[in-house]
Amino acid sequence: MSDAMSAPLRLGIAGLGTVGVGVVRIIRQQAALLEARTGRKVTISAVSARSKGKDRGVNLSDYAWEDDPVALATRDDVDVFVELMGGDEGPAKDATEAALNAGKDVVTANKAMLAIHGQALAELAEAKNRVIRYEAAVAGGIPVIKALLEGLAGNEIKRVMGVMNGSCNYILTRMESSGGTYQDIFAEADGLGYLEADPQLDVGGIDAAHKLAILSSIAFGTKVDFDGIQLEGIERVTIEDIKAAADMGYKIKLLGVTQKTGRGLEQRMQPCLVPDTSPLGQLEGGTNMVVLEGDAVGQIVLRGAGAGEGPTASAVMADICDIARGVRGTVFGQPASTLESATAALTKLPAAYYLRMSLVDKPGALAKIATVLGEAGVSIDRMRQYAHEATSAPVLIVTHKTTQASIETAIAAMDSTGVMAGEPVALRIEEV
Amino acid sequence: MSDAMSAPLRLGIAGLGTVGVGVVRIIRQQAALLEARTGRKVTISAVSARSKGKDRGVNLSDYAWEDDPVALATRDDVDVFVELMGGDEGPAKDATEAALNAGKDVVTANKAMLAIHGQALAELAEAKNRVIRYEAAVAGGIPVIKALLEGLAGNEIKRVMGVMNGSCNYILTRMESSGGTYQDIFAEADGLGYLEADPQLDVGGIDAAHKLAILSSIAFGTKVDFDGIQLEGIERVTIEDIKAAADMGYKIKLLGVTQKTGRGLEQRMQPCLVPDTSPLGQLEGGTNMVVLEGDAVGQIVLRGAGAGEGPTASAVMADICDIARGVRGTVFGQPASTLESATAALTKLPAAYYLRMSLVDKPGALAKIATVLGEAGVSIDRMRQYAHEATSAPVLIVTHKTTQASIETAIAAMDSTGVMAGEPVALRIEEV
Repeated sequence: MSDAMSAPLRLGIAGLGTVGVGVVRIIRQQAALLEARTGRKVTISAVSARSKGKDRGVNLSDYAWEDDPVALATRDDVDVFVELMGGDEGPAKDATEAALNAGKDVVTANKAMLAIHGQALAELAEAKNRVIRYEAAVAGGIPVIKALLEGLAGNEIKRVMGVMNGSCNYILTRMESSGGTYQDIFAEADGLGYLEADPQLDVGGIDAAHKLAILSSIAFGTKVDFDGIQLEGIERVTIEDIKAAADMGYKIKLLGVTQKTGRGLEQRMQPCLVPDTSPLGQLEGGTNMVVLEGDAVGQIVLRGAGAGEGPTASAVMADICDIARGVRGTVFGQPASTLESATAALTKLPAAYYLRMSLVDKPGALAKIATVLGEAGVSIDRMRQYAHEATSAPVLIVTHKTTQASIETAIAAMDSTGVMAGEPVALRIEEV
Repeated sequence: MSDAMSAPLRLGIAGLGTVGVGVVRIIRQQAALLEARTGRKVTISAVSARSKGKDRGVNLSDYAWEDDPVALATRDDVDVFVELMGGDEGPAKDATEAALNAGKDVVTANKAMLAIHGQALAELAEAKNRVIRYEAAVAGGIPVIKALLEGLAGNEIKRVMGVMNGSCNYILTRMESSGGTYQDIFAEADGLGYLEADPQLDVGGIDAAHKLAILSSIAFGTKVDFDGIQLEGIERVTIEDIKAAADMGYKIKLLGVTQKTGRGLEQRMQPCLVPDTSPLGQLEGGTNMVVLEGDAVGQIVLRGAGAGEGPTASAVMADICDIARGVRGTVFGQPASTLESATAALTKLPAAYYLRMSLVDKPGALAKIATVLGEAGVSIDRMRQYAHEATSAPVLIVTHKTTQASIETAIAAMDSTGVMAGEPVALRIEEV
């Protein structure tokens, strides 16, 4: 073991919110364990946050304080800059770049920064012979970056899927268990503090899409391409659809899917139906799940807490321990210069679809819809018509595999049949 | 990057069964991907197996052949000895030791060798500044060694549990779905080639216990202690118990559990009941699942194929890629010299128990059993008596948390009540 590898690993931690405090706590409480496991002491030289005076319930008096995260990131007594501020621009990015330029390794939980600037940061890190590690950026405590980047390194990756926003999964599963509307349960989740300051990051699917963009890059050797993600949040999921989907044997999840197709990289973050007996279908509450599919390994499912002080700090510590043990390597699994530009697939892979519609109470209404579907090339796997409610009848259809274009053609044509009572709903059914 | 890190990584592969052939296949088919991901070529210098002439469906003509695995392990053109022969003694161990002594790193899938000789091999490897990596030894394609050793390195581990023998889980879930007896389904599984040449390794729980011993060492910083495992196979699990457990909301699994208690290290591999709604309870067929619990991360669940060519070769490749990328480190997560001797806990942690018994058709029979349980300090959570079958009545009891000693006392006392029709069955209910 070289001298450098037996000297303490000295951290500078920027951001002392829930996760930052969790990291400080582990380093203080588990000092002996960390030294036994990494072969060296892990110490904190300095910390930085917006407000110095605030009581965070942890003793910070042993550490130097920096108001400016850039100053922290470039201190001589810092080997690793631990970025836990968040935000894709501003201080987080400035300090990360400063750290790399000053020859520091970086550990970050910042999914937004990596999803938007990951390529440039990876190029900078590799030019400086530094590492950026970010286990905490995706799915909290689940070691999914490690599983994909290292554990499945011998696989050609076929598909990566996941429920990666606990707040959305909480809302969807709570809607089902309580029968409440989206608006009701959104308010409840907000009241419980489950949502980001800007809730659109959660319910709009943006936070989960940031994570998906990172996983895509590792899985397929492409530059992170957040803009290439087909993105739809959960705001339009109704309790009626959750109940109807359950009736057909499905759950509705905000599901991220990335796969390489003959037409390019297909990245989707949208409400999908999955079988209620599948691991994804059985995932309740705020828990996260990521499914990795490789040509050799088949399907690996990882499940755990996607947020919170302990789980996220655990992931940050995994990166710190790896660096302490001397693990180096590229940011996204191969040199940043060799990552290909992602070509977003414009047409999506075929899938079965769930359709829910309300038909007016007229003879031949169902026949008209069936005709429209047939003319669009959409064939019906299963159909249920329910008892009439006043003047309309709810109808559920599960189609055979078809294209999104065919579904859109059919829905457009339904308008002119004169038998629709309200807008039809179409949701993709993901094969899991 | 040093010269050594850009030179090809040269393998010597001993053992060309299913897994060995799978590894050769991946290295041939994914050469470009492996080079992109590790920064160097991964090549095979030589191979070894029992029969040179056998057609294995993969082209081996590019590689030197060695009849003797020790000769293979010590070749000058081999950097990493890949041991895929199996067996805790004999050629596998001899060649592994020879490889380490000759300054080679080792990748192995050999759970038996590590469970029995892991401590000595780790000491040898670390003395020689070499690594032994063994992702494939536990739970096939699931990257559980990596998750526990690296992904949860910042955690104090609380408990590790798993269903880690796919053949046993196949038998148990197939018994339930078909209603067949253990003997019937054992014969079916054997006919399908699902069992080891010595099926006792599977159904006796030995194979799964080897894996548990390895996980214990990493989790708790103790020397592998296979002999300290309380071991019971699935041979005595009856279809009656599977049905009765289902009736009470449970599944029976061959569950490995390891946890550190105030009384020492508690390692158990035995048929247990788990709630049918839990991830472990929902695990069907030959799939494996490992549950990791840490103080910071909470509970992480990993699920995937536990055996087979692709999954196991995937795990071997993860280790090879790590070595190619320059990852070093200790064998069990901290220096072998610092691992403590495990003190096997002689008394097990309290648990709820499932009891199934047949009572003779006499007034007061149930009261006698209830009295015996009460006198042993076992209190009843739930009880069901079923309709009498001829002269006896089946009774199911779920107890509150109690000790194994109390259960044993109660069962011993039941004998002399004169109301038992046959032997009672007691199974632990694991809180998952």
